[in-house]
Amino acid sequence: MTYRLWYWPGIPGRGEFVRLALEAGGIGYTDEAREQGAEALMKDMAERRPEPFAPPYLIAGKKVIAQVADILLFLGKQHGLAPKGHKRLFVHQVQLTIADMVVEAHDTHHPVAPMQYYEEQKPEALRKAADFRAERIPKYLGWFERTLAQSKGDWLAGKSWSYADLSLFQLIEGLSYAFPQRMAAVAGDYPKLFALRDAVAALPELQDYLASDRRLPFNEEGIFRHYPELDGA
Amino acid sequence: MTYRLWYWPGIPGRGEFVRLALEAGGIGYTDEAREQGAEALMKDMAERRPEPFAPPYLIAGKKVIAQVADILLFLGKQHGLAPKGHKRLFVHQVQLTIADMVVEAHDTHHPVAPMQYYEEQKPEALRKAADFRAERIPKYLGWFERTLAQSKGDWLAGKSWSYADLSLFQLIEGLSYAFPQRMAAVAGDYPKLFALRDAVAALPELQDYLASDRRLPFNEEGIFRHYPELDGA
Repeated sequence: MTYRLWYWPGIPGRGEFVRLALEAGGIGYTDEAREQGAEALMKDMAERRPEPFAPPYLIAGKKVIAQVADILLFLGKQHGLAPKGHKRLFVHQVQLTIADMVVEAHDTHHPVAPMQYYEEQKPEALRKAADFRAERIPKYLGWFERTLAQSKGDWLAGKSWSYADLSLFQLIEGLSYAFPQRMAAVAGDYPKLFALRDAVAALPELQDYLASDRRLPFNEEGIFRHYPELDGA
Repeated sequence: MTYRLWYWPGIPGRGEFVRLALEAGGIGYTDEAREQGAEALMKDMAERRPEPFAPPYLIAGKKVIAQVADILLFLGKQHGLAPKGHKRLFVHQVQLTIADMVVEAHDTHHPVAPMQYYEEQKPEALRKAADFRAERIPKYLGWFERTLAQSKGDWLAGKSWSYADLSLFQLIEGLSYAFPQRMAAVAGDYPKLFALRDAVAALPELQDYLASDRRLPFNEEGIFRHYPELDGA
């Protein structure tokens, strides 16, 4: 079966966590809104039953699956992108913690009004971003580092990569794009985490994808945005 | 097996979504930190391997499961608190959307600095809460209402309740505590959602629990806080 992925065109956003799993797993999919545009996405979403709350969502035959972590749970099981048994729950738990940090990273530029422009909430964003850099980055990255140290292999759940490793790579890439000064300042504190980032970037399964135009660059329309005034060592 | 639940004592918080599932499912558990206190919780959490990122977490024999949605995925499968097959993914998807709204409800009183006091971020909170009341409450509640309308029964996934129905009850209860004026003003727009809230409150499986002192009241230390200045019709 060829899956159909629907996500906003033009940004990596939350869709990228799904794309990385599809691409690394060698799983066939079409990226519908990159072909058809955002209007087609909104029309398709409104007509789906059950209706997704938001993109991304995946069409698998008659199934409609939304929420990144739920899509990855499904793909992980169907395509062996996660271990079996209890470790599957652990991988999902890490994925949910990655999702929590993604929300907070987004909220650095949209702390009080998600549908208004960044420029309309800049004083609040400056304060949120300062707290995120000082408190939240060490809290989350420290936990990811300890989790990797507690693993019996180089990956989150042992000796093979799972979808959560791919997502953790994307999270570190996004944070490094948005907060280059801060991430450079703390990188030395998290050697296993940055080694994992490098290991995912070097996966043979991902080389074609990462060099292709299917891999969208970060920009100031997405979750991870580089506004120099929000960064600092 | 008797599970051990660890969560901050004194607030319903995120632990309550787990407690409701355990109680409605008639599943044996101990509520460790209510016996032993917050210091014991912090000590226990630091010593667990893998270490949870945050409470709540559930000890099931040698397993440590953290993140509310992951705990509920586990309990749902083990104890029949969710349907099988594809509907299990759907119930989980709804749970993740409930979790998203819980974050936003929390952030109305802590929009820029999660570890500082509400009083230290009141101007930002006033703006965040106004946006939450005007934009986010209708967006989320409208989606829950449509999802219920698209169900083939009175519950989210058909003719039997699942853990996500219990969580949706808790979400509506929390929002009604925090934003009584706003929730009273919109209640008529979401008849199925408020009927579901009432149906969970009337579940025979929950009557003992809801009348007991195991059921903690909302207060101004938790996720859902009633600050009159953050409410409005």
